[in-house]
Amino acid sequence: MCTIGEGVLTMATTVHLSSSSLFIQSRGRRYNSLTSVNNLQKRNVLSLSASLNSQGRGHMNPPQGNDHNSSFDFKSYMIRKAESVSSALDVSVPLLKPLTIQEAVRYSLLAGGKRVRPLLCIAACELVGGDETTAMSAACAVEMIHASSLIHDDLPCMDNADLRRGKPTNHKVFGEDMAVLAGDALLALAFEHMTVVSSGLVAPERTVRAVIELAKAIGTKGLVAGQVVDLRSEGLNPDDVGFEHLEFIHLHKTAALLEAAAVLGVIMGGGTEEEVEKLRKYARCIGHLFQVVDDILDVTRSTEELGKTAGKDVIAGKLTYPRLIGLEKSKELAENLRKEAEEQLLGFDSEKAAPLVALASYIASRNN
Amino acid sequence: MCTIGEGVLTMATTVHLSSSSLFIQSRGRRYNSLTSVNNLQKRNVLSLSASLNSQGRGHMNPPQGNDHNSSFDFKSYMIRKAESVSSALDVSVPLLKPLTIQEAVRYSLLAGGKRVRPLLCIAACELVGGDETTAMSAACAVEMIHASSLIHDDLPCMDNADLRRGKPTNHKVFGEDMAVLAGDALLALAFEHMTVVSSGLVAPERTVRAVIELAKAIGTKGLVAGQVVDLRSEGLNPDDVGFEHLEFIHLHKTAALLEAAAVLGVIMGGGTEEEVEKLRKYARCIGHLFQVVDDILDVTRSTEELGKTAGKDVIAGKLTYPRLIGLEKSKELAENLRKEAEEQLLGFDSEKAAPLVALASYIASRNN
Repeated sequence: MCTIGEGVLTMATTVHLSSSSLFIQSRGRRYNSLTSVNNLQKRNVLSLSASLNSQGRGHMNPPQGNDHNSSFDFKSYMIRKAESVSSALDVSVPLLKPLTIQEAVRYSLLAGGKRVRPLLCIAACELVGGDETTAMSAACAVEMIHASSLIHDDLPCMDNADLRRGKPTNHKVFGEDMAVLAGDALLALAFEHMTVVSSGLVAPERTVRAVIELAKAIGTKGLVAGQVVDLRSEGLNPDDVGFEHLEFIHLHKTAALLEAAAVLGVIMGGGTEEEVEKLRKYARCIGHLFQVVDDILDVTRSTEELGKTAGKDVIAGKLTYPRLIGLEKSKELAENLRKEAEEQLLGFDSEKAAPLVALASYIASRNN
Repeated sequence: MCTIGEGVLTMATTVHLSSSSLFIQSRGRRYNSLTSVNNLQKRNVLSLSASLNSQGRGHMNPPQGNDHNSSFDFKSYMIRKAESVSSALDVSVPLLKPLTIQEAVRYSLLAGGKRVRPLLCIAACELVGGDETTAMSAACAVEMIHASSLIHDDLPCMDNADLRRGKPTNHKVFGEDMAVLAGDALLALAFEHMTVVSSGLVAPERTVRAVIELAKAIGTKGLVAGQVVDLRSEGLNPDDVGFEHLEFIHLHKTAALLEAAAVLGVIMGGGTEEEVEKLRKYARCIGHLFQVVDDILDVTRSTEELGKTAGKDVIAGKLTYPRLIGLEKSKELAENLRKEAEEQLLGFDSEKAAPLVALASYIASRNN
């Protein structure tokens, strides 16, 4: 099976989906004391993981109320797509001069990871009739933006993280100046790569539309907005912060780029406006769902079951869904989000929708 | 008259073109001792300035060998375009929530400046038959990239500058974390703004082409490459560095974005490939020309004439054109670059070429 957390993709026997595989910063980190030098390392230790063994040894159970193919092999699909994406990313940043910056860019971009966002992009493209080739430039672009945000997020003036995916962070290896520039370079490269590679493959109208979606997901309407509100929430009392405040951070810091990944896939695949909006909603739901489940597991599972300290959110006084609306209502919310995500896939070809159904189902049913 | 350095555009009586108006970092800063906290302030004090009074009270003399309109009022053109660009930039970043990041972005983007790059973009668009409206989205995008690079360049881990355009740098006002994010937001906003605004104005093929050009100018093939080589040259003996090394820095750190500005203007204006290449060469020449003249003035003018310490490059042991090829050869090189820039404009309508001819001529003939 494959590791689908932030670690390197392997053929290991257990599938992990750590919180940091979807979230560039563990939510609420500004509300607790985990902002020290080794906070990333701590977060990795604390991250939730889940085994696909508990869900049919890697074969996703079909969600209730849907006729999607029950024999879909999520694990194989995930590995296949991650390998394709990693190969495409490798080619996208050749070792040209100046070597230092190219090495810094490659260090973070090719450091492994489950390629969840690229997978979403490709699966969304395939859903509307496109193929992997058509989606790949956008899939790589989204991963470049993700890598860029991680590099800048790890900087001493931000999260001050020493480790990322078990390796020294970019600035620890190449210096802070190079890390700032590597992040900038990756941000620009995302747009360059997507537009250059897609030029001969899709109509320019689609590419323009994709550039707009991607850019909006990054800036002050997306990722950056979430990071800013998170940074500025440091030291605030969770009770004073409120539900909407937390939702804002999650929807911008995490869901925005997932949303862009899915929407770009639909755009590149030539989907309709209706399909764009369905996949936008789907991606938003799974981003939200992931966080709700994360909060529930913190209060319902033992440290042994979780593989990390149980109840840490409660101890840290973090604003969580159980704290805000209670455990039962949180479980209802999670189930509603799973259903809502799944509903967006109704009406599509069941075989093509299978990877996305499996992803939503997996996030909802994980036990640790 | 107007100040065309990095300061706020005013109706003052003297026109200044400071080195920092075209160069995001004073060249060779890594080869001398000006890397302390106040280096930007020092650079501003040391920067060259020139009065348009010496060139016909603001009316540019027609370059020899060209029949361009001698009555062209460069000053008025510059002021008019800078005002238009500033208005467009103001609208491009409304004060939406989260306010902190929008304020940080606006602080640097609307801090004044001569808008040399947007002017180049608009003038290039008008040259090939387009108009200001058609070029404006690209003109703003280029200025956003410029502002983004200045914010990141001023960070403590980069230039560690306290002042920019006479005001505290972005991170001094908003904090390092916000400055990193403001730079990222501006980088993304450039692509968002250009693609959204140009959607109804130009064919998507042109927009895609413009995105590719802009992205290439920023990343490891452009601006970032120049910054990396400059940063990594710190502490090197100028004599060991060599001519090509210095040319690489100038062409990437300075000329690449000027080149993109001009080329984007031609693309948006619907110019031919031949016109794109002519304007690319023009922009590259004026970037190069500016540096050669800067070096010549350092050894030929008194401190009083320059308004800054004369001979500072010699004292600092910097690699300069006079040092490498001698003063006379440097003057020849400057004249050749002016001619080469001007030659790119032959064959175009003389009235439309006038702003670009005037700009090249002005850079070549400045006395301080």
